[in-house]
Amino acid sequence: MSITDSLERIQRGAEEILLPEELKKKLARGRPLRIKAGFDPTAPDLHLGHTVLINKLRQFQELGHEVLFLIGDFTGMIGDPTGKSHTRPPLTPEQVRQNAQSYREQVFKILDPDRTQVVFNSQWVNELGSAGMIQLAARHTVARMLERDDFSKRYSDGKAIAIHEFLYPLIQGWDSVALKADVEVGGTDQKFNLLVGRRLQEQEGMEPQVVLTMPILEGLDGVQKMSKSLDNYIGITESPEEMFGKLMSVSDELMWRYFELLSFRSLAELEGLRQQVVDGRNPRDVKFELGEELVARFHSAAQAEGARRSFVERFQKGAMPDDMPEYVLDGQEGGIPIANALKAAGMVGSTSEGIRLIQQGAVRLDGEKLLDRAFSLPAGGEVVCQVGKRRFARLKVR
Amino acid sequence: MSITDSLERIQRGAEEILLPEELKKKLARGRPLRIKAGFDPTAPDLHLGHTVLINKLRQFQELGHEVLFLIGDFTGMIGDPTGKSHTRPPLTPEQVRQNAQSYREQVFKILDPDRTQVVFNSQWVNELGSAGMIQLAARHTVARMLERDDFSKRYSDGKAIAIHEFLYPLIQGWDSVALKADVEVGGTDQKFNLLVGRRLQEQEGMEPQVVLTMPILEGLDGVQKMSKSLDNYIGITESPEEMFGKLMSVSDELMWRYFELLSFRSLAELEGLRQQVVDGRNPRDVKFELGEELVARFHSAAQAEGARRSFVERFQKGAMPDDMPEYVLDGQEGGIPIANALKAAGMVGSTSEGIRLIQQGAVRLDGEKLLDRAFSLPAGGEVVCQVGKRRFARLKVR
Repeated sequence: MSITDSLERIQRGAEEILLPEELKKKLARGRPLRIKAGFDPTAPDLHLGHTVLINKLRQFQELGHEVLFLIGDFTGMIGDPTGKSHTRPPLTPEQVRQNAQSYREQVFKILDPDRTQVVFNSQWVNELGSAGMIQLAARHTVARMLERDDFSKRYSDGKAIAIHEFLYPLIQGWDSVALKADVEVGGTDQKFNLLVGRRLQEQEGMEPQVVLTMPILEGLDGVQKMSKSLDNYIGITESPEEMFGKLMSVSDELMWRYFELLSFRSLAELEGLRQQVVDGRNPRDVKFELGEELVARFHSAAQAEGARRSFVERFQKGAMPDDMPEYVLDGQEGGIPIANALKAAGMVGSTSEGIRLIQQGAVRLDGEKLLDRAFSLPAGGEVVCQVGKRRFARLKVR
Repeated sequence: MSITDSLERIQRGAEEILLPEELKKKLARGRPLRIKAGFDPTAPDLHLGHTVLINKLRQFQELGHEVLFLIGDFTGMIGDPTGKSHTRPPLTPEQVRQNAQSYREQVFKILDPDRTQVVFNSQWVNELGSAGMIQLAARHTVARMLERDDFSKRYSDGKAIAIHEFLYPLIQGWDSVALKADVEVGGTDQKFNLLVGRRLQEQEGMEPQVVLTMPILEGLDGVQKMSKSLDNYIGITESPEEMFGKLMSVSDELMWRYFELLSFRSLAELEGLRQQVVDGRNPRDVKFELGEELVARFHSAAQAEGARRSFVERFQKGAMPDDMPEYVLDGQEGGIPIANALKAAGMVGSTSEGIRLIQQGAVRLDGEKLLDRAFSLPAGGEVVCQVGKRRFARLKVR
C-alpha cells in the first residue's frame, strides 16, 4: 500500500493529525511504528464510543504497526489523593491485573493480539522516584499548564485545581518517552496531554510523536457524547438484540457518522452505500448492514443475523411510518370510544368494523395490541393508531 | 523562667509569631520543644544577616529547647532541574557532607552542639517516591500556591514559574511533618512556606507548628538587605579587623538594630546603653562594644580587643571629620603642584612649608601618605588632603 493510501486510511474519521508531514516521514521509513494509546486502569465496560479510538488502533495494525495499549496503573493505584472522590479509591495490583485481563477480553474483539503490547506505566513512573518527579515537574510552566482549556476554565471560575493535576499530563507525556511512541492516539479532549508527550520527547532528544486525535462519538440521541451516565450508549457486551435494536434507533444522519467511525468497511464501500440510498434504497436496510457488522464484531455473524431477524419480527412488522396522517377529534366527557375514533379518522368503514377488528387483535395503540373494545381515548390525549399492517394514523383528542 | 519571660525573649526581634497563644501552650507543657530551621545545602559562607535566625535558635536553646538544623539536601542534590542556573548544579552526597561540616563549624560558634541535631531531608523525601510526591502535590491547590507573593507577581508579569517550584514549599512543609516540629523559624520571606508546614501537619492530625519569622537584616548601608552580591555584608569568617572596621562604619541608628538582632545582651542591658547615649556617652564607644561582642563571638575576646585597638590606631587617630572645608582650585596644563595647592587652600603658610611637611611624611592624600614633593593634583580631580593630625580639606581642581 502506498504511503498516500496509508495516510488516507489513518486520516479517516480523525479530528486532527499533528503533524501529517511527520507522519508521512515516519511511514516512509517502512518500519512498524509504535502506536500508543492510554487507558484508565479502572474496570473497563467499553461502549461503542470507546471503540472509535480502538478502531483507529486496529487500522494501524492492519497497516503493519504495533499498538502499545497502555494501562495507566500508576495513577490508578494512587486513587484520588484529594480523597474527594468516592469513585476513585486506590486500586490494588491484583485489581489492576484483573482489569487488564478484562480489557484484553474486550479489546481483542477489535485489536490483533499479535500486534498489541499491553503495558503498565507504574513500571517506569515508580522508577522516577521523588527526585525524578521534581525533574519532570520542572519541564513545564504553570502558565502553560493553565492554558489547558479545562484548567483555564476552572481557574477563572475559582474552582480548585490540586497541584498533582498538573503532574498527570507530565506523567502521561513521560509514558511516551518511556515507550518511544511514534504516534499517540487519543480523544480530542486529550490533545493538550498528547502534546506534552511530544514536548518531553523532544527535550529528551527523541523524534516527537505524531498526535492523532479522534472525535468523541455522539450517543444514540445524535447530540450528546455517548456515555453511560447519559444512557445514550451501546455497551460492547450488550446482547445482540439490544445492540442491534439500539443501532436501529439512530437517525439516518447519525448512521453515516457511525459508519465512518465504527464500521470497518472501506471509504469506497461507504460511498457505494450512500449512492444506493441516493438511488432509492431504503436507509433502514443500510442501517441493518451497520447493525449486523457491529453485532458480528462483538458476538458472531450468526448472532448478528439472528438479531436482525428478531428485530424485523418484533419491530419492523409493526413499524410505524414516519409520515402518517393526523386527525384531531372532538372528545366529550369521558373521551371518545375507540371504534368511533377509528371511524372518524376514516381508518374503518364503520364502528362495527372497528369493533370486529379490535376483537381480531388487528388494532394497536402506540404499538400495543388493543383488545378492549369498550376503550375510550381520553380528552387531551394523543396516540398512534394502527389498523392491520398498513393503516396508521396519529389521533389527537381535544 | 516564667512562660511570660520566655515568650518575651522569644519575641525579641521577631517579625511575627503565628500564633503566640499556641506557643504559650507549647511552652506551658514544660517539655523541650523541637525548633526547626531549614538551610540551603550549598557551601555556606554565612554573614551576619544569616545569624539573625541562628541567634533566635540559640535563644531557644538557652531556654532548654532542641534545634533541628535541617539541611535541604534533597533539592540540593537535584540542582536546578530547569538547567537554567549555572550556579545550581546538582550536589553530590560528598559535597553535601562537606557543606554540612562547614555549617557545623560556622554555626556552632553560636549554637550549642548538645542541643542541635543536624538533619537531612533527602532521608524522608526520597522515601516518598513518585506516588508520595503525587499525594503530597494533591494537598494544595494551584490557586493557593499562586497566592504566594513572588509567584503571584511572576505569574501576573508573565514570567515563567516551573511546576516543580510549586512542589518545593510542599516538601519544606513535609519536612515539618517528618520532624514533628513544634516551631519553625524562618525569614519573613519564608512565611508562606512555613504556613504550608502548619497545614500539612494539621492534615496529618498533628499539632501544627508555630511559625516564627525573623526580619531580614539590613546591610552596612542600612537600607538594602545584607547580601554578598550587594557587598554590604560582614562575613562571619572575616578577620577580626575587617569585621570590627565594617561594624564601626554603620550609622548610629543601624547600630541599635544590630544590637537588637545580633547582640546577646539582654533587652535590659540594651536599654541601659541607650540611656547612656541619651546621657551623653559617645555612640561610637557603644558601637565599640557591639564590635567587640561580635568579633569575640566569631574569633576570641583577645582578638576582639586587638581589633578594637588596631581600629583606633589606624582609623580613629586619622579619622577624617565629616565637615571639612572644601577648596576649588584652578588647575593648569599638567595640574597643580601639591605644595602650591596646600598653600592655595591655606593649609600651609608657604609652598616651602608644604614641601617640608611632605618630606616629613605629614601630608596624606585620601589617607595615603604622600612623599613625592613633585606630585601635581591633576585637573578635574578631587582629593581629601590631610596635613598633620588635624588639618583637613577637600581639594577640587578644575
